[in-house]
Amino acid sequence: MGGAKGSYGQLLLLFSLFLSRRPQLTISWSESAAAEAEAIAAIPCSGHGRAYLDGILVDGVPTCECNTCYAGADCSQLLPDCPADADSGDPLFLEPYWQQHAASSAVVFSGWHRMSYRTTGDYFISVELEKHIRLLHEAVGNAVTDGRFIVFGSGSTQLLNALVYALSPENASTPASVVATAPYYALYKLQTDLFDRREYEWKGVTSKWVNASVASMGNFIEFVTSPNNPDGRLLQSVLGGSSVIYDHAYYWPHFTAIPAPADEDVMIFTASKVTGHASSRFGWAVIKDEKVYQKATEYMQLNTMGVSRDTQLRVLKLVKVMLAEMRGEGGIFEFGHKTTRERWSKLSKVISSSNRFSLQQLSPLYCTYFKKIIDPSPAYAWLKCEMEGDVDCSAVLREAGIISRAGAVFEASSRYARLSLIKTQDDVDLLLQRMEALVSKEDVASF
Amino acid sequence: MGGAKGSYGQLLLLFSLFLSRRPQLTISWSESAAAEAEAIAAIPCSGHGRAYLDGILVDGVPTCECNTCYAGADCSQLLPDCPADADSGDPLFLEPYWQQHAASSAVVFSGWHRMSYRTTGDYFISVELEKHIRLLHEAVGNAVTDGRFIVFGSGSTQLLNALVYALSPENASTPASVVATAPYYALYKLQTDLFDRREYEWKGVTSKWVNASVASMGNFIEFVTSPNNPDGRLLQSVLGGSSVIYDHAYYWPHFTAIPAPADEDVMIFTASKVTGHASSRFGWAVIKDEKVYQKATEYMQLNTMGVSRDTQLRVLKLVKVMLAEMRGEGGIFEFGHKTTRERWSKLSKVISSSNRFSLQQLSPLYCTYFKKIIDPSPAYAWLKCEMEGDVDCSAVLREAGIISRAGAVFEASSRYARLSLIKTQDDVDLLLQRMEALVSKEDVASF
Ligand SMILES: Cc1ncc(COP(=O)(O)O)c(C=O)c1O
Ligand SMILES: Cc1ncc(COP(=O)(O)O)c(C=O)c1O
Repeated sequence: MGGAKGSYGQLLLLFSLFLSRRPQLTISWSESAAAEAEAIAAIPCSGHGRAYLDGILVDGVPTCECNTCYAGADCSQLLPDCPADADSGDPLFLEPYWQQHAASSAVVFSGWHRMSYRTTGDYFISVELEKHIRLLHEAVGNAVTDGRFIVFGSGSTQLLNALVYALSPENASTPASVVATAPYYALYKLQTDLFDRREYEWKGVTSKWVNASVASMGNFIEFVTSPNNPDGRLLQSVLGGSSVIYDHAYYWPHFTAIPAPADEDVMIFTASKVTGHASSRFGWAVIKDEKVYQKATEYMQLNTMGVSRDTQLRVLKLVKVMLAEMRGEGGIFEFGHKTTRERWSKLSKVISSSNRFSLQQLSPLYCTYFKKIIDPSPAYAWLKCEMEGDVDCSAVLREAGIISRAGAVFEASSRYARLSLIKTQDDVDLLLQRMEALVSKEDVASF
Repeated sequence: MGGAKGSYGQLLLLFSLFLSRRPQLTISWSESAAAEAEAIAAIPCSGHGRAYLDGILVDGVPTCECNTCYAGADCSQLLPDCPADADSGDPLFLEPYWQQHAASSAVVFSGWHRMSYRTTGDYFISVELEKHIRLLHEAVGNAVTDGRFIVFGSGSTQLLNALVYALSPENASTPASVVATAPYYALYKLQTDLFDRREYEWKGVTSKWVNASVASMGNFIEFVTSPNNPDGRLLQSVLGGSSVIYDHAYYWPHFTAIPAPADEDVMIFTASKVTGHASSRFGWAVIKDEKVYQKATEYMQLNTMGVSRDTQLRVLKLVKVMLAEMRGEGGIFEFGHKTTRERWSKLSKVISSSNRFSLQQLSPLYCTYFKKIIDPSPAYAWLKCEMEGDVDCSAVLREAGIISRAGAVFEASSRYARLSLIKTQDDVDLLLQRMEALVSKEDVASF
């Protein structure tokens, strides 16, 4: 303030402006943490990356973590010949949403925040978070939770096996058969094989068992993914038995029209695909039967003693923001659906002029959340290579500088490949660019 | 500022004081989160409780969560006839430490902080956190980590089973036998039974197998807890086979002298017992063999896809504080050891005048961390009921208003009971009070 030459009045105005910007706010012990977080968030990464508090330090400062194909200290350098990476289901498409809601979505942890094993609810579950998850389903209209139990997991990944355990018969002579309809999410098989127990074992694709005798049905545990990963179809149980795990990871308006609230006995959801925080490892199961709930809870206790309470606090804050902004200008589903719909529509347009490739058929559907018919907005494109010689679609794409997930991973034909539409805009831009180039080569070739 | 009548100079002073308190700090989007956290931390709970950000709301405000036996809106009410609860291993004894280090240990999460499945390191592990954990072991001198692999888990709980899996033979005709020395931490059995697989099964106490044929030894997986829960003894492998899991949850100067850095092939540690953040669910394994490391990593990926990155950020901050304050006035081990040593010494004094009860024998030992001989400071008292009629020690204590953990839980005689010395000061005060009363009744009875 050395050079301050202003009048008393000016200074008074400045001071009261200063104070009025922070009504009733007193900040002491959290100040340096807040300043640190803001300083690091402000590190410039050219819009193609971001620095995080726990990033790798160079000269004591976290470095920019660049989007794929970008490099340099400030991520400003686009790497030539870098393949478009459309492999993973990393939900970065929602990152800009949270950047736009910075003030309402931040959380401050004190060093002594909730250190105990115990939390507010039973079985290591936050009462407030459980309540807000029920409110979220009600507000979105995508699942019935009244009179149901809720179990939290470290990602829905943990719950998938917890439910397989919970649905397994206790003293059966033969293990239960765990099945899913192809193309299916590969983790079901990998996880079931790893945890392969006396009580259950992986038995491949559901369709193989459709004509099995009715008597043996009780011993089947069927995974149903709806909307399906990879192809976005809304699926139902094929076997119609009593032990069905509905994986509703993508049953949110970001990715599909919501025809009606889901109402199955066992339903699994995940923060990864609704808030976009895959990093937090947070999922939940909505369960009708008390005994199944008890067994899933027991699994959670002995596997990890519940889910990180740090994560539960953070997810609570995120869900509160989603609820506060619901259906408004700043609504996350408005944002998410618009993003995925545009991405799908652009990719569809490119593929529509191709004879070599085709996409899964998805139709506009009435959505009870948006209260109108909406265009498709799937999380993934399920691309098929139509030409006789293109037996390995993923290899064809790789050749053209596109990393996809091969059909075989989903126990489907290798003529298929999955392209992720939920990663960063940079990833999708590069993907569209490469797909366009690939398709335009066709035109040339066919002349 | 309505009534401000001061001169320009006074105001200028005030303003610059105001600014100088916050040098270089700019706070914008994190301000309301910081103010919220501080407002809630400031809710008065009489020193017998605390309010948390995610506490249960009453009239929109989180309520005080009171220590056991305290009640009322501000926890000021001591409940009469409330039993002293010395059951769990809730590490609340470190809560005051973090309250004293409020400014350095707080962390601010932005809404968009690290949303991706990926982190800085492989297998969902933060490079900075791994580095700081190695630094912590080096600074404390309690474990060799050079050239070892590190795997993170959601609590050491998750790692216990991950390591049983990793150490199991792959295609053996008979499952590996999982054993531990009694008295042992009950979770080993409960968890192994729940995950009971074709590859391994629980086989009870180690001592039963000491004389088994050497040939069968390869198929044993032995848990060794050192210091042991419940009795605090430093233990070694009994079978001496190659598949030993050293659970070093309590191998920190809080709880034991550190004679030398632990150097076993498989060692497990947990934040729960070193920082005291049981809630965060964070543990780590230090592993020598690459193949065992790979299998444990595979387990972590398919079970939960790694540990919450939120928790990894928070634990990083806590470890940084521990390192910065190491061996100084504000050192966590100085604080922790002093607390547990005093608690043990007070309880020992009470029990020393009793004929009815005895405690485990623990001797002063040279500690390489403190560089001197230190008195015992165990996490738990392992109480024995000596009188012929007192067959069920836990019931005897219960009668006297003390909740303990029964010896049978540890596969030990019911003449034993475990008393926790790591909970809140309120819990320990009440425990000491009740034990004193119980012991003084002896004197009366013997007259
Ligand atoms: C169908 C499906 N279920 C479950 C998951 C696992 O998600 P998380 O463990 O992050 O909740 C995924 C992730 O891509 C998925 O696609
Ligand atoms: C010996 C021992 N190992 C492991 C654990 C589990 O701790 P956590 O899962 O919180 O890391 C405990 C908890 O009390 C314990 O006493």
